[in-house]
This record gives sequence, structure tokens and C-alpha cells, in this order.
Amino acid sequence: MLYIIGLGLSDETDITVKGLKAVQSSERIYLEAYTSILTVGKEKLEEFYGKKIIIADREMVESESDAILANADTVDVSFLVVGDPYGATTHTDLVIRARELNIPVQVVHNASIMNAAGACGLQLYNFGQTISIVFFTDTWRPDSFYDRIKENKQFGLHTLCLLDIKVKEQSIENLARGRKIYEPPRYMTINQAAEQLLEIEENRQEGLCTPDTLAIGCARIGTATQQIVAGSLQELVDVDFGGPLHSLVLVGSKMHHMEADFIREYAVDKSKFDHLVSKTSA
Amino acid sequence: MLYIIGLGLSDETDITVKGLKAVQSSERIYLEAYTSILTVGKEKLEEFYGKKIIIADREMVESESDAILANADTVDVSFLVVGDPYGATTHTDLVIRARELNIPVQVVHNASIMNAAGACGLQLYNFGQTISIVFFTDTWRPDSFYDRIKENKQFGLHTLCLLDIKVKEQSIENLARGRKIYEPPRYMTINQAAEQLLEIEENRQEGLCTPDTLAIGCARIGTATQQIVAGSLQELVDVDFGGPLHSLVLVGSKMHHMEADFIREYAVDKSKFDHLVSKTSA
Repeated sequence: MLYIIGLGLSDETDITVKGLKAVQSSERIYLEAYTSILTVGKEKLEEFYGKKIIIADREMVESESDAILANADTVDVSFLVVGDPYGATTHTDLVIRARELNIPVQVVHNASIMNAAGACGLQLYNFGQTISIVFFTDTWRPDSFYDRIKENKQFGLHTLCLLDIKVKEQSIENLARGRKIYEPPRYMTINQAAEQLLEIEENRQEGLCTPDTLAIGCARIGTATQQIVAGSLQELVDVDFGGPLHSLVLVGSKMHHMEADFIREYAVDKSKFDHLVSKTSA
Repeated sequence: MLYIIGLGLSDETDITVKGLKAVQSSERIYLEAYTSILTVGKEKLEEFYGKKIIIADREMVESESDAILANADTVDVSFLVVGDPYGATTHTDLVIRARELNIPVQVVHNASIMNAAGACGLQLYNFGQTISIVFFTDTWRPDSFYDRIKENKQFGLHTLCLLDIKVKEQSIENLARGRKIYEPPRYMTINQAAEQLLEIEENRQEGLCTPDTLAIGCARIGTATQQIVAGSLQELVDVDFGGPLHSLVLVGSKMHHMEADFIREYAVDKSKFDHLVSKTSA
């Protein structure tokens, strides 16, 4: 059996009892370590499980899936994913490959930012499509997600923005020379995301991501140090949200006054917040 | 401490290790039992936790929240919710009331249909707003969610339809006479949802929920008997999906061919599916 097991959002104890049993029955355990992170590392998980873990980087998952799946028709193999297994496309690929090899698959679900984002106080059913904001470079400053925000806002919907993660990236020089030397991991902050959105607004001028646009910064959702701060994009540029992972919610007009009351507790500046709410809900 | 703990989607072992520890440290344990269900009942949970559980119905949660929160500033109290704690508004109300009473709150997240819907094979970031389909009655046949589907489809987005649950409902006669006699629970099936959508389409005639509209029925997602079937709404009317809970995904045009390949395995009729995909993606 191939188990694909969501680890949830925070630490080693966020695995489900069902997932833990599957891990403990497994002969090999892989940890997908490039689309998200927990607050604890491999060693902590190994200690908790009483088992060794193999780190699976993007290269391994994409080009060595048969090694991961080897003899999974006769023994149990666990593939661990931060959040929920269906949060990233790669895992769907693994399911498809297992199907081709007639290997039974069991998915053990868990929380992911896609549903835990409800912690910000906005009802999940009023979220539109989710966007990903990537790190701008000198030569590549993509802004196509601005159109997605526009589509969501048109119907009053909120937008969950997932922020870029760069793990095991090579510099252009190292890549060109084929040197497997990797840059330190980088995680986009809410501050950077807000700055990039404000820059895009400067170019597009359609009024969707202005300095006064109401947003909610969500850092380390589901962990003991979770931090939620509501304010204008300009205000969020200067809030210290601490370590990763960060995400950002752009508030649409479909905000109930009960939701606003709840979120007000998280406001940088409550009177400014009230003003932004009255503009947003209008 | 008030713990609000998500139980996930299936059985007693879908609680996280963190959640289980909190339950076992709690002096009182409430189970919210009216917005969703597990595949196991109260007794099974009590046996697994080694603790007694108090069933909290809608009336109790909405009008007796202070009893639930009593002395939670000095002892641990757990409030259990099927899925994730932020799936229903009621739990937000409980957090607000706890805040007012200066009771610390910790939320333990888990999977909910809002993220586990990814199991159907469509990427979650291409879902638009979520809708709820309620049971039609002779006199009340609401169809405002048809406009939400239209908004989603306009931008190629998929629509997750949550289907009605009626638990502890009184008949009009019993309600009028103040008799606390309750009807048996009812859970809307995918068949009923498809039929209601087809009826609304007959009235609205905007081409969003026709007999040939591509949809994916998802029954008991995350459980051992999970069943996923893709087909036209007309085809889904006749599929036997078994027991609750059911949900339904209306497919938008933003379906990648890789996603279609994955979903094809679930098709009622593969050649008809290919035809519907070519129409949907166009």
C-alpha cells in the first residue's frame, strides 16, 4: 500500500492517529520537502515516529517515482506531505503512477492552508480562486494573478494569496555549470507580497491593490505562534510577522459585519480598520 | 483553555495526535452534531478517548454557550467539530464569546470537505466560491446559488456544492405545538442535488446546469468507502452513491488535460466523458 499522508500545518503532533499508524507500519517513509514546511525538522519527526525518514526533493519525486513506489504492492510505503496531500500537483502524479503499477493508494487527509485560512475570520465559502505570488526578479515580474484578483473582487469574493517558497534552488551560475550547490531556502513574507502587489497596482492602476486595500496577513496558521494582522496593504508592509510560512488574504466586499467584528481584534489600527471596512463593504 | 478540535472526515482515528491529547486532558468534551457527521457515532469516540462526550445540538451551542464555556479559564474544555473548526459560523461565535470571557482558545485544525475536495482530481486553486444546496420543499425552492455558479463559470472556475443536512428538525406540526419530537436525519444525495439543479436549469435556461453539464459526485470523501464518479448531471442522477455524506463538484473550463486524464478513471462512461471534457474545456 502507498499511503499519502498529510502532516497538517504545525509540528509532529499534527499528524492524525490514522496517519501515524500507517507511518509506523511502513517499510520506507518519504518526506516531501519542497512545497511547504512544518515548524519542526526531519529529526523531530523521526524521533516521534521511531522511524527513519528519506527526504524527497522535487527532483526525486518528479524523476524517481518508481524508486519511491518500488515493492509498494507488497509492503507499506508512506509519502508524507505538509498540509493535505492534494495541495500540490506532484502528489497527483504519484497517484497516477501508482495506479499504472496497480499499487493500492490510501490518502490520509489533513488541514492545509486552503481550509485553515478560515482562521482569519472570513467564511471560506466567500473565497474565490486562490493565487500564488512568486518572487519578483530583476527580469521577471509576473502580474497575471492581478486579473484573478479582479475576477474575485468583481463578485465580492476574497482572495487567498499563497506566497512563494524557494527551496533547493541553484544560482544561475551554479545551474549553468551543473554544480549541485543550493541557495539557502527563501520564504516570501507578507511584507514582500504587499510590496509587490502595490508595485503591480502602480502599473495597472485598476484600484484593486492600492495602499488602502484591506487585507489580512496570516503567519504560521495553525501553529502556537500563529499571527493574524488586518490592515491596509500599506500598513502590512511594515508589520513584523516573524518566521515562515506567511500567506495573505485580500478582502472582498462580501464581508458580513459579524466577520468584521471578529477581524477587528486583529487590526493594526482599529479606527482605520473601521474606515477600510466601510469602504470595502460598500 | 477552550480547545476547538477538528475531527476530520472519517472515523475516530482521524483526530490529530495534538487533538487527542487535548481531549484526554479535558474535563468536559462537547461534540457538535448538526453540521456534519463522521462514519462512527458518539459511543465509538467515547471508547477511543476513554472519556464521556456531551452531544451539543444547535440549540445548545447557540443559546447555552456560557454553559459550554463554564470555568474554561481554569480547566480544559474540548469542543469537537467534524471536519475543521472554521467550517461553520457557529464556532466563530463560540470563539468570540470565549474572548469576551477572557478564556484562552486553541484551535486544532483538520481536514474538511473544503480542502479534501481536491481528491476529485481538480486543483483546488481553480475553485470559485462554494455554494450550499438546500432541500426543496413544496413551497420553498430557492435558486440564488445558480447566480454563484454563473459567476464561477464565467471565469472557468469549478464550484463545490455542499449538500443539505437536516438533523434534529421538527415537523411544522410538532414545531407549532412546541413538541420536542424530531424527524429522522436527512442527508441530501448527489442524485437529489443533480435533480434539483436540472429543475432550476429548466426555469433559468442559461445553460449552466444542463443534462450534459460535467460534474463529479464525491461521496464519503476521506473514508474507506469513498466513491468518486464523474459524468453529466443526467448520468449522476442514476448513480448509486451509498450513504452520506455527499457533495458535488460542477466542473469549470479551467481543467488541465492532466486533470481530465486523472478524472477519466472515475467516469460513468469514458467516451461520453471525453466528449463532455472537450465541450467543457472549449
